Amino acid sequence: MNQWENNIRKVTPYVPGEQPQENDIIKLNTNENPYPPSPKVYERHRTMEVDRFSLYPDPSASELVEKLEEYYGLEKGQVFVGVGSDDVLSLAFLTFFNSKKPILFPDVTYSFYPVWAEVYRIPYECPPLDENFRIIPKDYERENGGVVIANPNAPTSLGMSISEIEKILLANQDVIVIIDEAYVDFGGETVLPLLDRFENLLIVRTYSKSRSMAGMRIGFAMGNKRLIQAMTDVKESINSYTMTMESICLGAASLEDEEYFQNNLRKIIDTRAYTEKELEKRGFFVLNSQTNFLFARHREMSGQFLFEELRKRKIFVRHFQTERIREYLRITIGTKEQMEKMLAALDEIMCESC
Amino acid sequence: MNQWENNIRKVTPYVPGEQPQENDIIKLNTNENPYPPSPKVYERHRTMEVDRFSLYPDPSASELVEKLEEYYGLEKGQVFVGVGSDDVLSLAFLTFFNSKKPILFPDVTYSFYPVWAEVYRIPYECPPLDENFRIIPKDYERENGGVVIANPNAPTSLGMSISEIEKILLANQDVIVIIDEAYVDFGGETVLPLLDRFENLLIVRTYSKSRSMAGMRIGFAMGNKRLIQAMTDVKESINSYTMTMESICLGAASLEDEEYFQNNLRKIIDTRAYTEKELEKRGFFVLNSQTNFLFARHREMSGQFLFEELRKRKIFVRHFQTERIREYLRITIGTKEQMEKMLAALDEIMCESC
Repeated sequence: MNQWENNIRKVTPYVPGEQPQENDIIKLNTNENPYPPSPKVYERHRTMEVDRFSLYPDPSASELVEKLEEYYGLEKGQVFVGVGSDDVLSLAFLTFFNSKKPILFPDVTYSFYPVWAEVYRIPYECPPLDENFRIIPKDYERENGGVVIANPNAPTSLGMSISEIEKILLANQDVIVIIDEAYVDFGGETVLPLLDRFENLLIVRTYSKSRSMAGMRIGFAMGNKRLIQAMTDVKESINSYTMTMESICLGAASLEDEEYFQNNLRKIIDTRAYTEKELEKRGFFVLNSQTNFLFARHREMSGQFLFEELRKRKIFVRHFQTERIREYLRITIGTKEQMEKMLAALDEIMCESC
Repeated sequence: MNQWENNIRKVTPYVPGEQPQENDIIKLNTNENPYPPSPKVYERHRTMEVDRFSLYPDPSASELVEKLEEYYGLEKGQVFVGVGSDDVLSLAFLTFFNSKKPILFPDVTYSFYPVWAEVYRIPYECPPLDENFRIIPKDYERENGGVVIANPNAPTSLGMSISEIEKILLANQDVIVIIDEAYVDFGGETVLPLLDRFENLLIVRTYSKSRSMAGMRIGFAMGNKRLIQAMTDVKESINSYTMTMESICLGAASLEDEEYFQNNLRKIIDTRAYTEKELEKRGFFVLNSQTNFLFARHREMSGQFLFEELRKRKIFVRHFQTERIREYLRITIGTKEQMEKMLAALDEIMCESC
C-alpha cells in the first residue's frame, strides 16, 4: 500500500436504489413521482436565458428561498436550500452535531443517517422501533447530542402525530432536533406549527418526491434564523454556489401551481389505497402508509424471492438486506396502470410458485 | 446562549465576489466568461425532456464523465465530477487530507483553501510566495500532509511550468498533490502529461471559466482510478445525486464544439494582451497573466481607491484586503468593449484626481 492511501478517509457509502437506464422498465424503487413537474416548470424551462449560464448563480438562491418562505408563511431568513435534501441533511449533521454525546435516530430509518454520522465522525445510537415499527418517544429522553426523526419514517411508511413529536422536542431542548419531512405531503402531519415554539427544531423537505423534481436536486430546511444562518455559514465554507441557475428558477416556478400539486398528491394517495387493498387480497401484510410508497411483506413468500422475480419482469422495487426488514418490499406508488402491471406480475409469480 | 449553540461548528466562511443583480453593470469581479455557452449547449437545453426531471439523475453522471474521459484521452474511472470545482476541491480535502501533518499551499492563492482546511479541521501551513509572487518549489520539500497548488495561481495570474511542478511531485510522493487548473485553458501549462507517472496527482478543473457555464455548476477532477474511487466513495457518503440532469447533459454537450471553445479562448487572450498594454500606458504594473484576469497595481494610486471609484461607475473588479496584495486589483477579462469602458473609467478617475 502506498503511504498516501493511509490518509484516505475510510467510509462505507450509502447504496442508493438502482437507476437502470433502460426505458421499458417499471421503476418503483426510489420513490420518484410518476407525474411530471408542474406546467409552470416547463414554461420556465422554455424561457430560461441560456446566455446567463456564463455567470455564477445567485449564491443565496434568493428567488427560490423567498418563494419558499412565502409559501410556508415564514419570515425572511428561515429557509435554507441545497442540492436535494441529502445535501441539506448532511450539512445539518456537519453544522449541528459537534458534541461528544451520541446523536439518536431509530434502528430502522433512512439508511443515510448512519453514513453521515460515520463520514463526519459523529457518535450515534439507534433506539429500536417497537414490534409494530413505531418510534417509542420515551427512547429519546436520554442524554444525547441531537435527534433525527424521519416523519413519516422510511422505509416503514409510518407517521407520528405532532403531539408525539412535541414530546420528543420537550425532552430535547438543549440539542438540535431534525425532523425529516421528505414524505409529509402524502398524508403525514407536519411539525411546521411547532417552529415558533422550538428554536432548536429543523424541518427538512425535498422536491424529489411530492414535487416531481428529483432530477433537479432541490431540498430545503426550515427553522429559526439562527439555525439557518449557522447552516449558511458552513455551506459558505464548502461551496458558495451549490444551486444551479436552472434549479433556482424551476424550483421557484414549481410553487406557483398549487392546484396541479394538490391534484397529483390526491392521485397518488388514491392509487396507494387501491394498491394496498389489492396487495392485502394477495396475502400481503401492508403497513398503513402516509408516504408515496408501501412497505409490505407477503405472509408466505420471502422478500428476496419476490424482489428478484419482479426484477426479472422488469419491475424494480426496493428490498433491504437488513435483518428486521428482510421480508419486506418497499414499493413506490406509480400510476394506477403501473400498479396494475405490478399486481399482475405478482399474480404470475404466485401462480407459478404454487 | 442556548446549550445547542455550543455544538454549532465554528467557521469563517469564504467571501465570494459580489453578485449584483442589476443589469447595467460591467461585471469584472468573479472571472466569468464574457461569451455565452456553446451553441451545442443551447440546442441540448432546448431539447431537454422536462418530463424526466421527475426521476433521479444518473448518480454517476456517466454521460458527462465518459465524454470528459474521451476528451482528455483518459481511461474509464479517471474522472470525477462535482457541483463546480469548489465542490470537487472541498471533497478532495475531506477525502485525502486526514493526516496530522499540515498540508501546504502558498500564502497568496485561492482563498478557499484555508477555509476548507478550517471547516474539516485539517492543519495547514502557507509558504510565502517570493517577492515577485512566484511559488518557490523548494518550500514544498518539507514533511507535510498534502500539497495544493493553483496553476496558474489566483489571484496572481502567474503560471508555473510543468517541470517546476514535477519537482514538487518528485518531492511529495507519499501525499496527495492537488493541482487546481481552473484557469489553465487561458494559456497555462497543464500537468496532464504527468498523470501516468504520478499516481498521487489530482488535477481539478472547472466549467465556470473557459466553458462559460458558471451558472450550471460543473467541476471535475482527473487522477488515477484509486483516487477517483476514493472521492466517489466519500461523495456517496454525503450525497448520491449531486449533479442535476441538466448539468450532466449540458456539460456533455459543451465538449462537442472544439472550434467554438478555442475561438473564445483566443478572443479572451487577445483582449488580455490589449488590456495589459493599455493598463501599462496608464501607469499600472501588471503581472504576466496566464488566466482570464489581470492582477495589477497602479504605481501611484491605491487599490482601495481605484476599486471604489470604479464601483461608483458600476464597474465591479475584485479587491482583496489581505496585506501583501492590498494595492492590487484583480480584473476579469471581459469583451473588448467592456475593457474599453473600464479603461475610459480609469482615465476619468485619474483625470479627476490629478
